Amino acid sequence: MVMMAAVMDACQWSGFCIQRLIEQPRSSGAKDCSFQCLSKGFLQKSILSTTSSTQLKSSTVPLHGSSYVHKKKGMHVLSPNISSPSMRVELLDAWDDDYDGVIINPESLPLSANAFELALRASLSNWKLKFQHGLVLVLFSHILSHGFGIVPLAMLPMKQGKKGLWLKILLDQADLVPIAIQEGFNYHQAESGYVMLTYWIPNEPSMLPASPSHQIGVGGFVLNDKREVLVVKEKCPCSCSGLWKLPTGYINKSEDVFTGAIREVKEETGVDTIFLELVAFRHAHLVAFENSDLLFVCMLKPLSFEITIDEKEIQAAKWMPIDELIGQPFYQEDHMSKKVIDICMSAYEDRYSGFIANQLTSKIDGKLSYLYYNYSNKN
Amino acid sequence: MVMMAAVMDACQWSGFCIQRLIEQPRSSGAKDCSFQCLSKGFLQKSILSTTSSTQLKSSTVPLHGSSYVHKKKGMHVLSPNISSPSMRVELLDAWDDDYDGVIINPESLPLSANAFELALRASLSNWKLKFQHGLVLVLFSHILSHGFGIVPLAMLPMKQGKKGLWLKILLDQADLVPIAIQEGFNYHQAESGYVMLTYWIPNEPSMLPASPSHQIGVGGFVLNDKREVLVVKEKCPCSCSGLWKLPTGYINKSEDVFTGAIREVKEETGVDTIFLELVAFRHAHLVAFENSDLLFVCMLKPLSFEITIDEKEIQAAKWMPIDELIGQPFYQEDHMSKKVIDICMSAYEDRYSGFIANQLTSKIDGKLSYLYYNYSNKN
Repeated sequence: MVMMAAVMDACQWSGFCIQRLIEQPRSSGAKDCSFQCLSKGFLQKSILSTTSSTQLKSSTVPLHGSSYVHKKKGMHVLSPNISSPSMRVELLDAWDDDYDGVIINPESLPLSANAFELALRASLSNWKLKFQHGLVLVLFSHILSHGFGIVPLAMLPMKQGKKGLWLKILLDQADLVPIAIQEGFNYHQAESGYVMLTYWIPNEPSMLPASPSHQIGVGGFVLNDKREVLVVKEKCPCSCSGLWKLPTGYINKSEDVFTGAIREVKEETGVDTIFLELVAFRHAHLVAFENSDLLFVCMLKPLSFEITIDEKEIQAAKWMPIDELIGQPFYQEDHMSKKVIDICMSAYEDRYSGFIANQLTSKIDGKLSYLYYNYSNKN
Repeated sequence: MVMMAAVMDACQWSGFCIQRLIEQPRSSGAKDCSFQCLSKGFLQKSILSTTSSTQLKSSTVPLHGSSYVHKKKGMHVLSPNISSPSMRVELLDAWDDDYDGVIINPESLPLSANAFELALRASLSNWKLKFQHGLVLVLFSHILSHGFGIVPLAMLPMKQGKKGLWLKILLDQADLVPIAIQEGFNYHQAESGYVMLTYWIPNEPSMLPASPSHQIGVGGFVLNDKREVLVVKEKCPCSCSGLWKLPTGYINKSEDVFTGAIREVKEETGVDTIFLELVAFRHAHLVAFENSDLLFVCMLKPLSFEITIDEKEIQAAKWMPIDELIGQPFYQEDHMSKKVIDICMSAYEDRYSGFIANQLTSKIDGKLSYLYYNYSNKN
């Protein structure tokens, strides 16, 4: 009872009503975190994507291609800032996530830079107050549970205060970016159409997940019954433009590795294939700016043989005797490419086993996704 | 000779001096493109990171943690816009890359928004002109080589015009972001401290590489001689917070997969390990916003056994009998986690072989990096 009163006080003081949090205990379903929650790092990094949608006030907020909207905790915190009654400033529309974070609704940002600046400042003040209250409550509960009572920490309605803020700004509101930066936000990630900014409230290094750092490349090794390998010559201005090599490319958004390899081979050469196994991958750093990439080499079986090249990217494609491919002076000097071809040939001749892809469900995040492992596992 | 005159005309008209391009033919060294240049997609995506630095006008431009500065083509294009002599507008300082792209120097952007706007507009006009001239020259050379002469396409000093523009804006110049967006730039990627914007000149879908889409997670399976596995219980607000599981985390920037696994285990539990093999990985999509991640499970051999937990992230850690780990009801219901543990135990009992990491040099990009493949390869 003492707890409840304390919570309500905090609640009124900050101008928020957190009564709903008290009334709606956190879902205990298994979907609250991801497979990677096999251990720590992962949970923090799958932020915004893993909460139950059962408490959604609105389940259909039309965010830009984002998956997390259906998974946020669902408590809108849009409310008047009653701490300064003489000037009524609307707070930003936002939701809590399950990781002590706040997701600001990008679809309801004030249109004018001025209004945004006022609302952002007021909202920041409130979120910072929530953080302080969270700290007070944790301390208080500690006394209760260790000194007088048996209030389990997990039952606290506000175990921790707000820590991380997420602000997505769409392309057409770019004038809000400098305002957010000025108020202390930093860039987190961006792609065509939006930039995501974050703010870390505690006076300590940010625990928010880093921005994506890798692109995933795929290469297809396709051999026909005459020991001819499907090779392409690229239209590129670099030194290897005259070189015959395997078809490769980057996977599309949310595309699986083996699906990407099949697609790239089809796009570049017109040849249909099926996936046999993933034979190897290369991890390279500082490839584009500060980023890294992983290139997965897939053994694919041809289902068709006629070649139709993608004239935009490919200069030529053909079936080339494997010995001729390896015989190119370049392959003799390039240890990485030579090893890849060696491995592929071993796999073709059944002297090597790579990884297959097996679709499995994870109870932790409820996702059906692929686990790649060695098919020759005798278990 | 006709070619040369045409080039010089174009040069003078656009206010640029491309004489240096003519005098300094493109390096034909093998470092011009990346390993992935095994096939097409890769080349376009390793943009900005792969050019020879031999022609650098300045080799020490202090860009924010970026690797590409030492690899750009090195022709500064800062020059007065002589097309409007009545109002002398400075162009943005920039370099050409080897992929028909232009990298704008983030360290020399005009400080005032007004000056930036003028310089950006003028520069855009010039780059667009260069693109048009490039097209004209390609056509012209085609006539020459097919109709009258034998001018090989590769010898052309300006085979193609400028296509992609790269503009990195650091945190303290955020007021320039809306201006760039207004002039037609779009977000490409961002991380703490900067946002990168791009502009695609041709009237066709952009061929620029996509922004990074993946985070790379690692998990460590560490078993001692008593068949006890090193497990942790995380401090997380999610449903699996009470679960004993493998130590996991995300790799740091430019960190290798196995190095990251060793580091995470050390940080979370204090236990020193060495890498044995990579047993499996999971590819999951829509994990954080629209991003995906790859979780690599590494078999590590313990070198020490005393446990010291990272109190910030870990609630508890211990050596737990493997049967007890698997016996947790959760593992029986979670097909993904169960399969991972099964594979790890098979590897421990020598009934399974995963991938080892072998450091190799690629002649294509000159990088020394790791190729992961099955060590039981009999080749």
